Amino acid sequence: MSAVSASTAGDGGGRRRGRRPGGADTRAALLAAAREVFGESGYRDATVRAIAGRAGVDPAMVNHWFGGKEKLFAAAVLKLPFDLPEYVARMRAAPAEELGERIVRGFLGAWDAADGAHFSALIRSAASHEEAASSLRDFFLANLFRQLADRVADDRQELRAGLVASQMIGLGVVRYLVRFGPVADAGVDALVASVAPTVQRYLTGPLA
Amino acid sequence: MSAVSASTAGDGGGRRRGRRPGGADTRAALLAAAREVFGESGYRDATVRAIAGRAGVDPAMVNHWFGGKEKLFAAAVLKLPFDLPEYVARMRAAPAEELGERIVRGFLGAWDAADGAHFSALIRSAASHEEAASSLRDFFLANLFRQLADRVADDRQELRAGLVASQMIGLGVVRYLVRFGPVADAGVDALVASVAPTVQRYLTGPLA
Repeated sequence: MSAVSASTAGDGGGRRRGRRPGGADTRAALLAAAREVFGESGYRDATVRAIAGRAGVDPAMVNHWFGGKEKLFAAAVLKLPFDLPEYVARMRAAPAEELGERIVRGFLGAWDAADGAHFSALIRSAASHEEAASSLRDFFLANLFRQLADRVADDRQELRAGLVASQMIGLGVVRYLVRFGPVADAGVDALVASVAPTVQRYLTGPLA
Repeated sequence: MSAVSASTAGDGGGRRRGRRPGGADTRAALLAAAREVFGESGYRDATVRAIAGRAGVDPAMVNHWFGGKEKLFAAAVLKLPFDLPEYVARMRAAPAEELGERIVRGFLGAWDAADGAHFSALIRSAASHEEAASSLRDFFLANLFRQLADRVADDRQELRAGLVASQMIGLGVVRYLVRFGPVADAGVDALVASVAPTVQRYLTGPLA
C-alpha cells in the first residue's frame, strides 16, 4: 500500500502512485531534494520547479507543505540538525576541560546522522544568502559560545568563537563537501581524538 | 586616455569607451566578474552572458580571451593565487618546527592579497564541480603535503594532510565567505599566533 495515511493528506489521498511520494513522504522528499538543489545552485538560482522535479512531486506541493521557497529553505537548510537547547545544556554540563571533545563529538554526531547534502547546502548558500551566513554565526556565537562564555579563558571570546567555528566548519567542509578521503572516511573517535585538543585550546588555552 | 594599449588588442582598438574596459582590462574585468558570478551561482548555473554582463563587456569577449566558460572557470577559480613551486620551495626550506607558522602565514598572505571573491567561488564550486574539489585536494595533498612528507610525523600522512586542510579551509571560509567579525577583521599576525600551533600539531605532533 501507499505510504500515505489518512492523517497526512495533501496529495489527493491514498491511491497507489508508483514512486511518487505522498503525504508526509512528500514533505521528506521535498526536504531532501531542496538540500540537493540549494547545494548545487545556491539560494538565488534554485527554483521551486527544479526542487519539486527532483522530488518527483507537483510544484504546488512546495506551497502546500512549506508556504514557498524561502520557508522551504529555512526548513531544509537553515534549520540545523541539532536540538539546540539540549545540545547547549549538554555542553554546559560538561567539565570545562572536556568541552573540546564534547563539541567535536556533538557536531560530528549530528551532521553524520543528517543528510550529507545539508551541510554542503548551508555552506554554499552562506556565500550569497545572508540568512545562511547568519545561521552559522548564530549557532557558534549566540547559541553555543555565549552560553559557554563563563567557561572560556580571558576576554578574547569573540576571536575564540571564530577560531572554534573555523575548525568545525572546515572539518565539515572537508568531510561532507570536498570529501578528502582520510577525513571523510575516518571514524568519529579518530577525528575527536585529533581535533578536540584544537577546539579545547581555542576555548580555554593560550592563543599566542 | 583609455587604459587599452596597442599591445593589448582584442576590443577593437584604443577608442575611449567610458567605463567599458578594453584589452588587458577586459581580461581582468572578466576574471573579477567570473569570481563573483561563479561564487553566487556555482559552475553549472553561471552563464557566459551573466559574467560578461557583470564585467560590462560583450559575451564574445569570453571566447576571445579565454576560449569559453570552462577555461574562464579554470583561470578565475581553479588557478590558486600562489606561485606553487615557489610556495612549496619556501615551505621545504623552513625548519620542521616552523612549518605551521609558514603555512598559515603563506595561506593568509596569498588569499588576503587575492580577490576575496576567489576563495568563496572555489568553495561554492567544490560542492558541484569535481575539478574545483580536486583543485583543493591537489593543493593540500599533491602540491604541498607530499612535498613535505619527509618532514611529517609517522605514517598517518593522509589524515594529517586532511586535518591541515580542515583548519586552513575553515579559516578561509570564516574569514572570506561567512565573515565572522573577529576572524575576518583580525590581522595576519594574530591569526598566525592562534592557528599555527594547530597546523604544527597536525603535521608533526601527536594526533591522539
